[in-house]
Amino acid sequence: MRDAPEKSSRLSYAADLAGTTVFAAEGALAAIGGHLDLFGVLVLGFATALGGGVARDVLIGAIPPQALKDWRYTAIALAAAALTFLLQSPAGKVPFWLIVGLDAAGLSLFAVAGTEKALAFGLSPFIATLLGTVTGVGGGTIRDVLLSQVPVILRVDIYATAALAGSVVLVGSRALGLPPKAAALAGGLTCFALRIMGVWQHWQLPGSSAS
Amino acid sequence: MRDAPEKSSRLSYAADLAGTTVFAAEGALAAIGGHLDLFGVLVLGFATALGGGVARDVLIGAIPPQALKDWRYTAIALAAAALTFLLQSPAGKVPFWLIVGLDAAGLSLFAVAGTEKALAFGLSPFIATLLGTVTGVGGGTIRDVLLSQVPVILRVDIYATAALAGSVVLVGSRALGLPPKAAALAGGLTCFALRIMGVWQHWQLPGSSAS
Amino acid sequence: MRDAPEKSSRLSYAADLAGTTVFAAEGALAAIGGHLDLFGVLVLGFATALGGGVARDVLIGAIPPQALKDWRYTAIALAAAALTFLLQSPAGKVPFWLIVGLDAAGLSLFAVAGTEKALAFGLSPFIATLLGTVTGVGGGTIRDVLLSQVPVILRVDIYATAALAGSVVLVGSRALGLPPKAAALAGGLTCFALRIMGVWQHWQLPGSSAS
Repeated sequence: MRDAPEKSSRLSYAADLAGTTVFAAEGALAAIGGHLDLFGVLVLGFATALGGGVARDVLIGAIPPQALKDWRYTAIALAAAALTFLLQSPAGKVPFWLIVGLDAAGLSLFAVAGTEKALAFGLSPFIATLLGTVTGVGGGTIRDVLLSQVPVILRVDIYATAALAGSVVLVGSRALGLPPKAAALAGGLTCFALRIMGVWQHWQLPGSSAS
Repeated sequence: MRDAPEKSSRLSYAADLAGTTVFAAEGALAAIGGHLDLFGVLVLGFATALGGGVARDVLIGAIPPQALKDWRYTAIALAAAALTFLLQSPAGKVPFWLIVGLDAAGLSLFAVAGTEKALAFGLSPFIATLLGTVTGVGGGTIRDVLLSQVPVILRVDIYATAALAGSVVLVGSRALGLPPKAAALAGGLTCFALRIMGVWQHWQLPGSSAS
Repeated sequence: MRDAPEKSSRLSYAADLAGTTVFAAEGALAAIGGHLDLFGVLVLGFATALGGGVARDVLIGAIPPQALKDWRYTAIALAAAALTFLLQSPAGKVPFWLIVGLDAAGLSLFAVAGTEKALAFGLSPFIATLLGTVTGVGGGTIRDVLLSQVPVILRVDIYATAALAGSVVLVGSRALGLPPKAAALAGGLTCFALRIMGVWQHWQLPGSSAS
C-alpha cells in the first residue's frame, strides 16, 4: 500500500493529498458558480487539483504522471468535488479567510513539491523554479480556460508571484547549503506568507498603463 | 502497409478511422458555424478528431502519438474536414438523428479504444476508465476551448457520463472474466445506448442549484 | 557553454533565439493590451515564445523540451517580455511593417526549425509539415486561449497557411534532392514571402458562407 509515493516521506505525501483535496473543492465551487452539472463539477475539481502536477510530469518526462499512476490522487480529488457538490454550499457561506488560508497552503505545497520533483529529475535550478510555479498555478489556469475566462493568475493579486518566490527561496536555500527539508520549509513559508500578505494588504504588481 | 496499427485487428482499425471521420466532420461544422476560413476548418476538424487520442497517448507515454505515427489518421481527418467545408452543408440540413447516431458511435468507439490502450500500457483499471473518457471527449473539449466556449461536455446532456459508463462496463466485464472482445462490445453498447437515450429522453445529470 | 544546441549550427541557434525574442515581445504586447500585471506579461511572453516548441517536443517525445533544458530560451523570453513591459510602448507607436516583418521572420524560422526537428526524430514528411506548423503557430494559439479569445490563426489572413506552405516546400525540396540547408532556406523564404504578401494584399482563404 505504501509503495506508490516512492521517494516521498509520509509527511509530504499526506501534505500532497491535503493540497489535492483543497484544490479539488475550489474547482468544484467554481463549477457550481458556473451552473455546471455533476459531471462538470467532477471534471473541474479533478482538473484544478491535478492539472498542475500532470503538466509538470509531462514536461519533465515523468510519464505516466504520478496522479495517474497512484489512484489515490484521483479518488481524493473526485471525492472532494462530489462532497462539495452535495453540500452545494454557496461560496459566500464559507468563511473567507478559511478559503484563503487553505488555498495559500495548497499553493505553497504544490510549488514546493513541483520544484523538488524538477530538481530530482535533473533540471537546472532556474527551470525548476518555473516548474514549481507551473505545478502551483497550472490547475487553476486549466480550470479558468475551461470556464472560458482569462485565468485568475493573469489578472489578480500576488498569486503566481508567491509560488515563484517560494520556489526561488527553496532553490536558493539549497544552493546556500541548507538541508532539503529546511529549504522546503523556507520556500513553503515564503509562498504562504506572501500570498496571505497579498490578500490582506491588497498588494498588486505594477500594472499596464496602456489603455 | 498494414503494420501501423500493430495490435489492432482490421476491424477495430477500420472502426477507429470511421470514428475519426465522424469527429472531423463535426469539428468542421463547428468551425463553419463560427465563420472561420478554410484553414480554421481544417484545424478544428483535425483537433476534434485526434485531440482526445493525442492527449491520451501523451499521458500514457505512447509517444509519438499514434495519430502522428500513422499518417492515415491525419489524412482522413483533414479530408473529412475539407469535404465538409466544400459541401458547406448548414448543420440544420443534415438529419438530426444521423448526426446524433454517428457522434454516439464515435464516442463509444473512442471510449473503448482509449480504455483498452490504457490497460495495455499497464495503468490501473480505475485510471483506464478516466483515460477512456478523455479519449472520447478530449477532442470536443479542445474544439470548444479554441472557439472560446465553455466545453459542451461540461454543460449538456449525458455525454461524458456515457463515455465513462462504457469504460467502467468494459473494465468490469474484464474483471468478471469476459473475453476482451465481449467486454469491448459490452462497454461500447453501454456508451452508445446511454448517449442515445440521453438525447431522446432529455436526461440531465443533477444540476447546480446555486445562483 | 556551447553544448546545449547539440545538432544546431551556430547560425540556426542564433536565429532560434532571435525568433524567441520577437515572439516574447509580441506576447508581452498582447498582455499589456489586455491590462495584465507584470506577472501576466511575463507569462504571456513566455508562453507565446516557447509554447509552440514545447508542444512540438512533447508530441515527438523530446522530453524535457529543449526550451526547458537550455535556460537561455527562458531567460531571453522573460527578458524580452520584461523590457517590453518597461517600455510600455503602445503597439501603435511601433512601425507597423517592423512588427509584421519581425513576426513573419519568427514564424518562418520556427516553422523551419519545427519541421527539421520532426524529420530528425524520424516522423514521416507528411507529419513533419504539421509539426512545423504547430511550432510556428502554437505559441500564439496558447496566448490567445489564455486571453480567452478565438486564436488569431483561426480567424485572419494567411498566417498558419504560410507556415504550412513553408514546411511543405522544405520537405518537398529535400525529397527532390536539395541539400538540407538549401531546403531550409527555400521553406523559410516561402513562408516569409507568403506572410508578407498576405498582409500586403489582404489575402484571405475562402471563408465560410454559412450564416
